[in-house]
Order: sequence, then C-alpha cells, then structure tokens
Amino acid sequence: MTTLRFPQPDLSDDALALVTAEIASTAAEYDRTGDFPAKGVEAAHRAGLLTATVGRRYGGPGVGARQAARILTAIGEGDASVGLLAANLLATHASQPSWPESYYEDLLRRSADGPALANAIRAEPELGAPARGGLPRTTVTRDGDSLLVNGHKAYATGGRGLAYHVVWATDGERVGHVIVPGDRPGITWIDTWDHLGLRASNTHDVVYENVRVPAGAFAEIPRGPDGVYRDPAAAASAGSFGHPALYIGVARAARTAFAAFARSRVPAALGQPIAETERIQAVAGEIDLQIEQAETLLHGALLRVEAGEKPNLSAVKVAIARSVIAATQTAVAALGNPGLSRHHSLERHLRDALCIRVHPPQEDAVVLASGRRLLKDTPR
Amino acid sequence: MTTLRFPQPDLSDDALALVTAEIASTAAEYDRTGDFPAKGVEAAHRAGLLTATVGRRYGGPGVGARQAARILTAIGEGDASVGLLAANLLATHASQPSWPESYYEDLLRRSADGPALANAIRAEPELGAPARGGLPRTTVTRDGDSLLVNGHKAYATGGRGLAYHVVWATDGERVGHVIVPGDRPGITWIDTWDHLGLRASNTHDVVYENVRVPAGAFAEIPRGPDGVYRDPAAAASAGSFGHPALYIGVARAARTAFAAFARSRVPAALGQPIAETERIQAVAGEIDLQIEQAETLLHGALLRVEAGEKPNLSAVKVAIARSVIAATQTAVAALGNPGLSRHHSLERHLRDALCIRVHPPQEDAVVLASGRRLLKDTPR
Amino acid sequence: MTTLRFPQPDLSDDALALVTAEIASTAAEYDRTGDFPAKGVEAAHRAGLLTATVGRRYGGPGVGARQAARILTAIGEGDASVGLLAANLLATHASQPSWPESYYEDLLRRSADGPALANAIRAEPELGAPARGGLPRTTVTRDGDSLLVNGHKAYATGGRGLAYHVVWATDGERVGHVIVPGDRPGITWIDTWDHLGLRASNTHDVVYENVRVPAGAFAEIPRGPDGVYRDPAAAASAGSFGHPALYIGVARAARTAFAAFARSRVPAALGQPIAETERIQAVAGEIDLQIEQAETLLHGALLRVEAGEKPNLSAVKVAIARSVIAATQTAVAALGNPGLSRHHSLERHLRDALCIRVHPPQEDAVVLASGRRLLKDTPR
Amino acid sequence: MTTLRFPQPDLSDDALALVTAEIASTAAEYDRTGDFPAKGVEAAHRAGLLTATVGRRYGGPGVGARQAARILTAIGEGDASVGLLAANLLATHASQPSWPESYYEDLLRRSADGPALANAIRAEPELGAPARGGLPRTTVTRDGDSLLVNGHKAYATGGRGLAYHVVWATDGERVGHVIVPGDRPGITWIDTWDHLGLRASNTHDVVYENVRVPAGAFAEIPRGPDGVYRDPAAAASAGSFGHPALYIGVARAARTAFAAFARSRVPAALGQPIAETERIQAVAGEIDLQIEQAETLLHGALLRVEAGEKPNLSAVKVAIARSVIAATQTAVAALGNPGLSRHHSLERHLRDALCIRVHPPQEDAVVLASGRRLLKDTPR
Repeated sequence: MTTLRFPQPDLSDDALALVTAEIASTAAEYDRTGDFPAKGVEAAHRAGLLTATVGRRYGGPGVGARQAARILTAIGEGDASVGLLAANLLATHASQPSWPESYYEDLLRRSADGPALANAIRAEPELGAPARGGLPRTTVTRDGDSLLVNGHKAYATGGRGLAYHVVWATDGERVGHVIVPGDRPGITWIDTWDHLGLRASNTHDVVYENVRVPAGAFAEIPRGPDGVYRDPAAAASAGSFGHPALYIGVARAARTAFAAFARSRVPAALGQPIAETERIQAVAGEIDLQIEQAETLLHGALLRVEAGEKPNLSAVKVAIARSVIAATQTAVAALGNPGLSRHHSLERHLRDALCIRVHPPQEDAVVLASGRRLLKDTPR
Repeated sequence: MTTLRFPQPDLSDDALALVTAEIASTAAEYDRTGDFPAKGVEAAHRAGLLTATVGRRYGGPGVGARQAARILTAIGEGDASVGLLAANLLATHASQPSWPESYYEDLLRRSADGPALANAIRAEPELGAPARGGLPRTTVTRDGDSLLVNGHKAYATGGRGLAYHVVWATDGERVGHVIVPGDRPGITWIDTWDHLGLRASNTHDVVYENVRVPAGAFAEIPRGPDGVYRDPAAAASAGSFGHPALYIGVARAARTAFAAFARSRVPAALGQPIAETERIQAVAGEIDLQIEQAETLLHGALLRVEAGEKPNLSAVKVAIARSVIAATQTAVAALGNPGLSRHHSLERHLRDALCIRVHPPQEDAVVLASGRRLLKDTPR
Repeated sequence: MTTLRFPQPDLSDDALALVTAEIASTAAEYDRTGDFPAKGVEAAHRAGLLTATVGRRYGGPGVGARQAARILTAIGEGDASVGLLAANLLATHASQPSWPESYYEDLLRRSADGPALANAIRAEPELGAPARGGLPRTTVTRDGDSLLVNGHKAYATGGRGLAYHVVWATDGERVGHVIVPGDRPGITWIDTWDHLGLRASNTHDVVYENVRVPAGAFAEIPRGPDGVYRDPAAAASAGSFGHPALYIGVARAARTAFAAFARSRVPAALGQPIAETERIQAVAGEIDLQIEQAETLLHGALLRVEAGEKPNLSAVKVAIARSVIAATQTAVAALGNPGLSRHHSLERHLRDALCIRVHPPQEDAVVLASGRRLLKDTPR
Repeated sequence: MTTLRFPQPDLSDDALALVTAEIASTAAEYDRTGDFPAKGVEAAHRAGLLTATVGRRYGGPGVGARQAARILTAIGEGDASVGLLAANLLATHASQPSWPESYYEDLLRRSADGPALANAIRAEPELGAPARGGLPRTTVTRDGDSLLVNGHKAYATGGRGLAYHVVWATDGERVGHVIVPGDRPGITWIDTWDHLGLRASNTHDVVYENVRVPAGAFAEIPRGPDGVYRDPAAAASAGSFGHPALYIGVARAARTAFAAFARSRVPAALGQPIAETERIQAVAGEIDLQIEQAETLLHGALLRVEAGEKPNLSAVKVAIARSVIAATQTAVAALGNPGLSRHHSLERHLRDALCIRVHPPQEDAVVLASGRRLLKDTPR
C-alpha cells in the first residue's frame, strides 16, 4: 500500500471546542436547506478528525473507541448531520477488514486531500430495519470477472457525498457487503430524506442497476453460531458507540443553548435573568445530570470493556438514548416559546436528538431480549 | 343590533368527523408553506362551527363550553393551526363583553358571509408572557374623539387573517383591551412566526403606529382583589378550555396515524402487520389511555364546574397538556423512522402537540402556586 | 321485608372531615397490630356511612356512585383498611340483586344495630386473579334442600369480621355467587394476610368445608355475549369506583402529612420551615396536581356516565391508580428519612397507596385490551 | 503497630455469590425482628470482606474502590442492613486517617478475631442532615489530659454493635471527629430506629454524657476554600460509592426474586409460567436495563476517576439511586399482590431500596448545585 501519513489530531478539550464552534457556525443553514453540509465536513477534515481511526498500518493515528467517541461528541455538538457522516466514516476506518486493497487505498488517498466519506448501506424499503432480522434483496451476480450489483436501498446516509458505499447484499447463497465506489454508473439517488431532524445528513434512497465492481469487492459477513446471518449493526460493540457519542454532542449543544438563553433572558416582570431563579437552576441541573449520566454510561461502558468486563452494550446504548432525549426535552419543556421557535437553536437540537432512536439497537428489542435471557437463566 | 341568525351546527360525532376529514386534507400543505390556512378555516365556517358560541341574544346558537370543546377537538384533529384560530375566535364570541356595539355587529355581519376571525393580542417582546405578570407597554392615547393605539405585540395568532384585534393596552392609568379592526391604517405585520409546530397559525409580531379607533373601543379589565391587574388569560376558567380541547384533537390525530401505520406496515421479516404484535398493541393502549385521561379531565372538569364544584382548573389544564404530549411522544417513540419522517403525518402531530406548552397557564407557575396555597392553608 | 329506616348521613365536607379525623386516630395502631379495625368501622357506622348505599326500597338513603365515592375517600383518608371494608360493603348494598331475601333482611337488621360487613370472596390460590380469567374451583353441591359449599379462597378481605360472604363458586354447570353467613360451621380462616399495606384489612385465606346454606343462596352470574363467564369485578362500572375513591383518600392523607411536616420542620441551618422553600412548594404543588387529576378523573368519569357518555372506565381507573401512587411517592421521595420513618404517618400512607394496584382491573390487561380494540377498529 | 495480617478475600463472582447466599438466608428474620444482624455480619467477616479495605501498611489487602463496591454489592444483595454496616466500616478502614494509634490498633486486633464495626456518627436531631450544612452541637471539652464528649446524635447506624464511633463534634473553635470506643461509660442508646427499610441496621439515636476519651481522639476536618466546615459525607468521592454499591445489591436481589417468581408462577388460566409471556419478559428486561445502567454508572465513574477524568460524582450517585429505585419499583408494580406480600422477598427489597434516598448527597441539592454551576459558567 501507499505510505500515506495522516495527522495525529489535537484532541484536547480546547482544540475540539474550536472545531465544534466552526462546525456549529453553518449548522442552522444546512438544517434549513438540507444541502450536503460541506463546510462542516471540511472543518472536521481540516482538524484531522475524519481520519482519526485510520489504522496505524495504514499510516493513521488509529485512535481507539474512547477518543473516537470524544471526536464524535465534539462534531455532533456542532452539527448532528456532520456527526452522523463522521460516525459512519470513523466506524468504517476502525473496522477496516475486507475491502479490496485498491479500493481502500483509493479511499485513503482521497482522504489525504480532503474529506472522503464511506458508509454502510443496509436498509431496504421492503425489509424494515435489518436489525430486526431479514435478509437483503440487493444482489451481486457474477458477470465475467466482475460483479453486478442490483437493488434498492433506503436510509443511505451521505447521499451523493459518499466516496464509497458498503452495501449489504447477497450473492444468492452468502450474505455480506459489496464495496461500491460512489461514482460508478448505474447508481441513482432518490431524494427521499425529509425527517424531523438530521436534515442535512442526506439519508436518501439509492438504486443500483447493474453497477459493475470487481469480483473481490464482495465479502461474506460471519454467520451467527446458529448459522443465521445477522445485521452486524444490530450487535452492539465498543466500535458502535459513535452514534450515541454524536447525540451526546447534540444534548450538550442543547444544554449550552439553554444556559445561554437563561443568562440573557430578562423578563420585564422579573428584572433579572431567569438564570437567577431556582426553577431554571433546577432545570439546568437536571439537564446536566442527564448528560453526566449519558457520558458516564458511554465512557464507563468502554472502560469496562477495556477492563475485561462484559457490560450489556445494547442496554447501555438504550440508556444513553433515553438520557440524551431526556436532557433535550427537559430544556425545551422549560422554556415555552423560545424552546420551540426556530429563532433559537434549541428547537433544532430537539429535532436532532429525537433521531437517536432510529439507530440500532431498538429499545423494545433490547429490553425484550434482555428479559428473555434473564428469565431463561438457571435460577440462581 | 341586526337580526342575524347563525346556524345551529350539527355536532354529532359523524358530522364532526366529516369536518375533521375535510380540514385534515389540506393541513400538511399549510404546515409546509406556513400560509394562512384559508381552506381549513372555510370548512369550519361552512359547518357553522366558527359561530357556534355566538350568544343567543346575537342570533347565535350559544353553545356552551363542553360543546365548544368538542368542536375544537374536531377542528384541531384536522389541523392544529385552524384549531388555534378557531379556539381564539370561539372564546371571543363566548365572552363577548365590552366591544363597541358597531364593531361587534360588523364582526357578526362578516361572520354571516364567511369566516371572520378575532383574537386577543397580549404578549409583547420585552414583557415575556403576560401570564407571568407585568403590564403592557402598548398605549392608547386620547386624540379628540378618538384613541390612538401604539405598541409592538408578539405572538399575535391569526396575522393578516384577523378581522379584529383585541389588544391588551394601557391608557396610562387603567389596563384593558382596545378593539382594533384588522384593516386600519398603521398596522404593520412582521412575519416572525417560525415555530416547530402550528406553522400555519400565523402567530406573528404586529406593530401599531397611531392606529385610530373610536374612544369607546377601550375597556378596562377588572383588577384583582389586591388592586393589581392580571392577564385574564392567566386565570383558567371553563371558557379557557378551548386550547386544551384542540390539542386533544392533535393527540387523536396522532393516535389515528399510529393505528393506520400499524395496520398497514408488514415487515418482510415479520410477515404480518405490526399491529398484530403485543408490543404495538401495548403502545396503542398506552396512547389510548393518555387520550382517555385527557378527555375525561377536560369534560370531567367542565361537568364538575356545571355541578357547582371547584376543581383547580389550572392544574387540570397542566394535566391535560402532559397527557396530550405523552400520547403523541409515545406514538412517535415506538415507530423509529416512520414517526420522524415527514412522509407520515405523525411527525407533524408531534410538532403541533408540543406547542400546547406555550399557552397559559405555565406548568411551573401552576405547580408553585398550588403548592404555596396548600402549604399556607391552616393545618387541617 | 322489614320496615327499617337507615339515616341519611351528613355528607357535607365538614361532617366527613370529622369522621376522617376520628377514624384516623386509631389507624396507626391497627396498622401496627393488624387487628380488625373495629373502632374505625364503628365510627363510619355511627356516621351512617356504612349503610349509605342501602337502596330506598330497603329503607336506605340509596346514595349514588358520586356520593359513595366521597364517603369512601373520607374513610380511606382516615384509615385505608377501614376504607376497603367499607368499599366492599357499599358495593354490596348498591348492587343488591340476588340474595335470598331472609339473608339480606338479616344483614340489614344487623346493620341497624351496628356495623355488619359483607364482601365478595372471589380469588383462589391456584387460580390467580379471577379478573385474568379462569373459573372457580369452589363448589356448591346439592344436599337435600340445602347446598354444601366447599373450597379454598384467598384474599378474602374482612376476615372474621364479615357478617356475610358472597362466594364465587360453581355448581358444576353454572358459575355464580353463593351467599354464606360468616358464622356458619365449616368456615376456617387462615391468617395469611401479611402485606406491605392495608395491614388491618384482614384479607386472609378462608376454607369452606361442607358449609350448609339454603338452596336459594346460589345465583348464577350472567355470561358474556360469547357464553363465557367473567369475573364481574373485572368489568369496570360506575359502581366499581369505590376502590379508587378510598385510595384517593390515602393520597389526601399523604398530602396532609407532607404539608404538616413541611410547616413544622425548621432545620437549624435553614432557620425557617422548609415549607418556605421553593423546592418544597413545588413538590407540594405536584402532589396537589396529582390528587386534583385523580379526583377529576373519578368524579369526571362518573359525571360523564351520568351524561350518557361512555368513557373507558377501566382506563380511567388505571389512570387514577397512577396518580394516587405518583402523589404519594412524590411526597415520600422529597423528604428523605421523615418520609420513610414509622414515626411519621407518610410511611404508612405510601404502603397503603401501593396496594391500589392489587385491585382489578390490572394495568397491563387494560392497556393491552385498549390497544387491541383500537388497532382492530376499521380505519377511520 | 502490630504485625497483624488480614486475609486476601476471594473476590471471584462465585465466591461472592456464596457469601450473598449465606447472608441472605437470615435477612428476612432480621428484617422482621430488627435485631442486630449478627449472623450476616459474621458471614461477611468469615469471608474476609469486612477487612478488605484495611490498608497494606496495617497488614490488610487494601482493595480499591471498585473491589470494595463489588464486595458491598454482594453483601447488600444478601441483606441490605448488613450491607450498610459493612459499607460504613469499609469506608472507615479505607480512609483511615487520623485515629489515635492505639484505638485503630485495637480495632484491627478485634477485627482479626471477629467483626469489629466502626461508623461515622454525624446527624443530630435539631440539625437536619449535615450534608445540608450546619455545625454540630455535640461538644468535646478538655478535662485534664482527657476530653469529655457530650451530645445527642441521630441516625447512628450500627447501634450497640459498634466497636468505635467516629463522632462529628466541635471543641468550640474547630469542627472535626472524635473517636469514641463503643463501650465507654456515658453512652446511652435510644432505640428510635423504626424505618420502612434497613430495619436491622440499628440506626438509632445515641446520647453522650461526659464520655471520656484521650485528648488525641479529636481531629479537625479540613475547612473548605472559603474557610467553612462542611460535612465530609456531602462531598461525593470515589470512596463514597459504598452506599450506592450496596443498594445495587438490593436491586439485584429484587431482580432475582422477580425472575424466580416469574419462572415458578403458573396461573391456571395461563397454563404456563408467566415468564413465558412477552409482558413479563419486557418487565424483566426493563429491570435488567436499570441495573445495567446503575452498575455501569458506578463502575464507569470509578474507572473514569482512575483514568484521570472528573465526572460529577454527586450527579452519578443520584442517577444510580434513580436506577436502583426504578428497577425495584418496576418489579413490584408488575406483580400485584406477590410484589407486596411479605410472603415474598420482593416486598422487603422494595422497602430497603427506597432507603437509598436517605444517604447524601440529596437529589435536590445536587441538581440545584449543578444547575447553578452550569449557569454561572462563562458562556461558551
């Protein structure tokens, strides 16, 4: 492979706060237009954050799960949509297992010059969330030395901004991923994304029609012990904490927006900032507690994994999601109109925070699985 | 006065459901554009709902608080923005106390031909919510036989669609309302409204510059027993249940959208509608319970008032708001992407439902006042 | 029948408050010992409350569901165990349908002289809650002109204090109730009752061995439209609001205890009663709001029924239970040690309040049934 | 000092589970009688757990905060009262700072032979919780070479079972702790403890009347940066996680009791264990999630401290308390009668779990302090 060298990013709190601020400065506008958040992505790239998980053997810094989480919290605090693009990319680099060498080399080379995004493309319209089971209908078929990819995918975050697609597909017998460069002929984007939040994430539908890739671009995923394929995204691992991390950033942005409003709002009838009232202080404390809880759950779970313990990572992710939503909803509920008006950023943070629920694992599935496991254990 | 006759509207469940359906058919589009929801308002007018509370002495049906609540639930179920315009109008007609006779006659005459809206205009940018105290800075000053109105108001629902404004103002000594026809020179609308929900309610800022009205257009509001003026909207009365009623409609719309989605969604991996799963049934039951709670609180409180009891109406309104939000958030939380995508109506219902919190009384003020009253009572 | 005349009780707030106070004066002691709460029952009897629902055709006042609820709230506020005995008795009188005439005449005659309790005896150890389905194993068998009752019942509130048992049983073909005088030979009480709360309710097990009653003592209950017998207690009706009513009394007692403590507690470091702090005022307001909600749900649902509407009474009962528990838990949670020490009554009120969940209908069953009904409705 | 050697306890999961089981075997009986839980304490001692935090310089294993937490979770899972005695003792050994050498040597010597308990005695009846501020009224006064201790303390966990008291007191100028052997003349216990839970913890009042100790027995505590003394218990530190740890044990016991009941309960109408129903599985999963959250918060926070981070430990403790209570209340709420009957252990676990709120820091104080800090920060 090439002998690229990716910079070791400055991960101090101060440095990350600067990146957050830069990304935040364009977030409201991208939220409004839904355009690809190019400036935010560029800012994250310039700070070296988008290649932070490139492995050492590829010349990257190879930062671990905890530092990756801090990076994504910082980016998500600036712009949740940029955070989602970055989370998917950092996870791709961190787990880099099975791409054709030339493809990954190309991704890295492009990443040296500017942001080069990659993302797993899994959901299909008919299938529902792959995390709930079900096999892909998207196919790879042999055609000479090549493979042809055909299928219709949904919720493909990154849209036309993706350099590479990691497409969940089947060759009829095996299930796995096929790596597809984003500029191949036969790829058609359908701009379906129109969500409450993460509006600039460009999580559109995409159709593959006889998209040609080399034979080595397809790699099977491991089957479960029962021989059944399962969506890898459904299995919570330390590497899957990028999503919760970015939404913790959203909650932090909501906390900051709440505090800034409380310090500056001086109702005529009160004569001082509402931040001086016990009620607003108690609300601020509750927001803070929820964020402290989310952060300790995230970093605590990763530290427990490092220490050789086996926390139930899916349950932890659900708990983080609850805290993120609680923090943000608490801020909004306390302010009335200013929490709901688009003239303040809190309204956007609420819309973004609610999107944490769309990422696997799904709360009800986790709770039911945990309960079944518990009740089936031999009585202690 | 004139001898107008307003129709007795058909308030059967079936008739109201038809109006709901007609209003609902244009709600998504008005939500998207923020335009004045003319078609929804027109449909409500055509069904005779917008004059339902016109008093019998004015030739109206004079329906009471419970029927008015049913009307507003039906309208709000169709389009929350139309519901808000209607709630404000029905309250104006129901409490019709102190307008100059010619003005009210004009409003009624116009109401016979088409929708003619009126609304109280109270909040001011510097003041904060009047329900929290504080006097208006908007003034009426004598100029010959007329009054000149000057001031800047915020959150003036109805915008250019208002036939009449009921403006909270002071003449320097007294505080009261001045009635201002919406087409007078000197009225300037500033299109500030850009909220998460109720996007078509046109709740903009408005500036009055030397707007001339007859001297009789101003009437003082009663002072409290302590000689202090208080915003009438802050005192919950049976006549103030129009707002909760319309948001119960929003929750009902969310329930219907949830059920419709659950019946039609057949994930490939499940092979049957998700409505057949115990989880979705339990979620539906919880939504239903919250709505049942909200409706029994609303109609129960009004019936208790009719029966001569004195429920704490402010507390009841807060409890209804919690139930409305709980019902809607429960529906959204259970569905993941379909609850958050603008391709489904649930997303809009969530945005609208959250706006229930902007109407007085405010939860924290109610809770604190109730607690103080309780703790000051002579120990029993 | 006899020409007994039962007094019209004084149901003014003041009169009821006096009964509450008298009953409350012995509640802590009965809670401690678990003895039959004779003094509390006697006080309720003396005030004419225990015969308030005796029908007019039997010389009783025949008060309706709303007044019965007020009575039970007042009794339950004094002593929850007395409240439960009274609720069961008032329901028996109110629904008096099918007893052998001589038995009911005897009950009334004894009720003229002193408290004479009656209660439905339904649960069986193997059966689980009858509200969840299942038929009784307790049998009535013909023996000459008599019936012999055999069986083992659980949760038979009232214990040896019962003048009459209304025993859910089967004759092999039909399911119904058999009326058994409490002093018949063959009745053995097993003192199993040892619950967190309602400790003086004497809700023990009871065994019937060849207990002889006249043939007319058994009466079938109606089958459902599907031909299946269902526990009548599972069907929420206006007459079944006695249980929620008494627990609202418990919540009111908790509110009073909280307020009294808050007014009297002056920590050295604070220098004034904690009732003067905004935090305690907000807690008091939340307790108050939950009780207001519970009372408006109860009385509002009964008024809606009177008005010909069909609220989902099971859902309303569940909602009341949530509010009662929330009010009481909120009081306890805010006080730390004083909320948990048996030196204060709040601890007992918490233990009693939690028992509201043991009465049908059960929350999960209600929620699931409501959800299924909703999802099966023809799409609107 | 002596050359005692304390055993390195076996802290494997299996070994701890054995100790839990042994302690659990007598817990219900001690809960019933309120007697000092001698057998449970003895079992913990025999396993070497009560001296686990004795420092290495004293011949002890000197286990750190994380292992101490695991020990206390195991003990608390067996018997919460034993857990509380052990938590206080382990904290005393872990922080061993300032005792007169002969006293600590004596404590250690006695600990080699059998359980020897020590505990901080801080609260006073007039004072309220010291964590809320206020100085002790208990005094030490010089009398020749000795000190005389006088005062009245409340909530002195351990009662007559204490070998040593660490008494919060003042000498008129300074505030600190005076070490008092439990068998000194002048100590009078008043058996005030009568709580909902932790009934065997013997948390009584104690009166000191001219109790004589050597002059060196008093040591000042450090003042805050503002020169003000603060109760050390109010400052959450890694060493203060013993209390949350033991209550996590209570929640685990509740989980086990819930699962055992669910596996064994076969209602006639269902025909299979309720553990097979989706509802009970979902409840079990929710209990499990809350416990996972509590454990990850506790161990995660300690790991973050080890990693040099500064989580808000007070907020984390509040969050753990919420999870412990949520887990236990969820179990109780789902079962109806079996969750509330003393014939099942779940009822006791609920009573014990609720006591987590009496330990500092208090939720409202933490939330308010966090909020104030947040709102006072320079805007970011």
